[in-house]
Amino acid sequence: METFEFYTPTRVLFGKGQEENVGKLVKEFGGTTVLLHYGGQSAERSGLLGKVRKCLEAEGIEYVEFGGVQANPELPKVREGIALCLKEKVDFVLAVGGGSVIDSAKDIANGAANPDVDVWDFSLKKATPAKTLPKGVILTLAAAGSEMSESCVVTNPETNLKRGYNSRLNRVQFTIENPELTYTVSKYQTACGAVDIAMHTMERFFSPGEDTDLTDALAEAVLRTIIKNGRIAFYEPENYAARGNMMWASSLAHNDLTGSGRRWLLQVHQLEHELSGLHTNITHGAGLAALWGSWARYVYKNCMSRFVRFAVNVWGVQEDFEHPERTVMEGIRRQEAYYRELGMPLSIREFSIKEEELETLAEMCSFGKSRVVPGYKDLAYEDMLAIYRMSFEYEG
Amino acid sequence: METFEFYTPTRVLFGKGQEENVGKLVKEFGGTTVLLHYGGQSAERSGLLGKVRKCLEAEGIEYVEFGGVQANPELPKVREGIALCLKEKVDFVLAVGGGSVIDSAKDIANGAANPDVDVWDFSLKKATPAKTLPKGVILTLAAAGSEMSESCVVTNPETNLKRGYNSRLNRVQFTIENPELTYTVSKYQTACGAVDIAMHTMERFFSPGEDTDLTDALAEAVLRTIIKNGRIAFYEPENYAARGNMMWASSLAHNDLTGSGRRWLLQVHQLEHELSGLHTNITHGAGLAALWGSWARYVYKNCMSRFVRFAVNVWGVQEDFEHPERTVMEGIRRQEAYYRELGMPLSIREFSIKEEELETLAEMCSFGKSRVVPGYKDLAYEDMLAIYRMSFEYEG
Repeated sequence: METFEFYTPTRVLFGKGQEENVGKLVKEFGGTTVLLHYGGQSAERSGLLGKVRKCLEAEGIEYVEFGGVQANPELPKVREGIALCLKEKVDFVLAVGGGSVIDSAKDIANGAANPDVDVWDFSLKKATPAKTLPKGVILTLAAAGSEMSESCVVTNPETNLKRGYNSRLNRVQFTIENPELTYTVSKYQTACGAVDIAMHTMERFFSPGEDTDLTDALAEAVLRTIIKNGRIAFYEPENYAARGNMMWASSLAHNDLTGSGRRWLLQVHQLEHELSGLHTNITHGAGLAALWGSWARYVYKNCMSRFVRFAVNVWGVQEDFEHPERTVMEGIRRQEAYYRELGMPLSIREFSIKEEELETLAEMCSFGKSRVVPGYKDLAYEDMLAIYRMSFEYEG
Repeated sequence: METFEFYTPTRVLFGKGQEENVGKLVKEFGGTTVLLHYGGQSAERSGLLGKVRKCLEAEGIEYVEFGGVQANPELPKVREGIALCLKEKVDFVLAVGGGSVIDSAKDIANGAANPDVDVWDFSLKKATPAKTLPKGVILTLAAAGSEMSESCVVTNPETNLKRGYNSRLNRVQFTIENPELTYTVSKYQTACGAVDIAMHTMERFFSPGEDTDLTDALAEAVLRTIIKNGRIAFYEPENYAARGNMMWASSLAHNDLTGSGRRWLLQVHQLEHELSGLHTNITHGAGLAALWGSWARYVYKNCMSRFVRFAVNVWGVQEDFEHPERTVMEGIRRQEAYYRELGMPLSIREFSIKEEELETLAEMCSFGKSRVVPGYKDLAYEDMLAIYRMSFEYEG
């Protein structure tokens, strides 16, 4: 067990109708002028935004609206939000949406509270936010886990770089989680969400560490829950229990619970960020699914016992004690079969990626062949290229 | 899944040497004059208190010492602590110890911050603390989970009533968890701790609720972890991984994680509080062990599927699909065999309880035959008496 700090101060209000409390909560956390931040028009059509406006008004809270965040949120939009906050003297940022809106809200809050720093420097880790604005979330998509995480990921379209940074200040003050608000999420986005949620925990599970019995068992609990409930939500979009278990898993999968005492490395995420940085039409979860199997086959020999454990405890594979590799492979196969069942790609060829882009991806991910992403097997440029190529050529 | 609020703002610093950060942390949370609160002399002998004094002094923090808290902390001592806080203008309470010291610290902090209220009224639920003092913990016993819980339990020796109350204000600001600080915990107290930790989660697991897949899986993860690591710590007191997993389980078992979306009822705890309220020499964990099996055999027919799940998922019992009761009984037997292996009692006769006290216990627990403790099977006076009697007569 490695030394760790665990700090998840976000207050969660979970269940039907909890969005009615948003005005009261903003007020409790000192908000008087709110940036009401959201994505497209679905929150308007569903009536959610109308409800939020009413709740804020009922508490006498001023608000400025700032919608239009896209998936894989982009830096220019963040800069626009910061300017708006400064102009309107915003003192609270409310994100209504999923991970993209929440990450945009975090970056805006950090930028607005530190107007003398270029906000992109936070993503490049050239600067660290010294303060921030308080933030709240009304969650409409179970996927990114940003509602309880300390991470924030934004893309710079000038360089195609998608970069994340962590800070204690990135924890939001509250998250409102009403599973009904995710009933209208499409089959495809539901599947991408199931992949993303599980991946936050799988990356922790497959990061080096030892003797973390409790953490490992909690991680397996999250993974089995997502396998079952992701599938139910895919086939029955209005199943409250399935949507609810997915939503709660989304928060716990990425609030650090499932990695306490292990190192926290993100090999598959790093590989994927270049994909959806280069092609912003790729949904993060789908990109992760397309890379995971190839990554697993490339690295598993360096951590056989973890992959055996994954196969047995997560997928219920009957262990072959004499031939552990067979157990490992069956675990990987079941994970991929699950991805396929949910309509997820197993090869990056299924996107618009071209073969000549593979080297570009590996160069980006290795910061021009200079960075090694550590793990049970460290990944340098050649390894990254090999994994991108395995995925590109995968016929499974 | 029921509606719930989840709020665990306590910052956890886990690992070797983390106690060195105590001065810095107290300062960060605004402490300038600290009540240094502890139990007996073991923290002095081990050198821990000396280290704490030095860390506080290094940060220029004043402190007043207040030791001598006993197991099952008592009201007069709390009142004394409150008076001391008021006299010395204490603005931070630091608990060095286990659940008894932490609960005493919580009650003192609430009493000192609300000097116009009789602190016992909080326990009687006649009053609610409106504010409190900030609090920190250096944990030296993995058991009560008070370091992350919102509960506080104190005994009034005038009436022998042991009563708990919950409040968001009872969450401490930080907890320092260095597993090495528990190496000297005796075999008996280690066993009592394993029982107490698991019981916080078992009580949630056996409280009514439905479709809480994630919560149930997390609960089972905690329970399996405690079974394994409690046993290792019992036989190998200086096993870091076992002490570490127990310590972290202690915090997560009672911070609400393992009950989210279920009702939160405490039948076995309520029954036990009367035992250790009446006989303060009874260790809470041992009292719980002595009651659990009888409670389980009394109520299981009202929640067969939960007991089958417990047997299969926690104890690995091979399920008898045709005769579920056999599976249930095997689960209960394994739990009791585990208690016995760790030297825990299975009958309250093993304490100094006399047969003529059984009615007194049931009367106390039912508040003079007026209270029903709800659950899958509600427990009124007659039920409580039956369970106390079953435990008293148990020959297993």
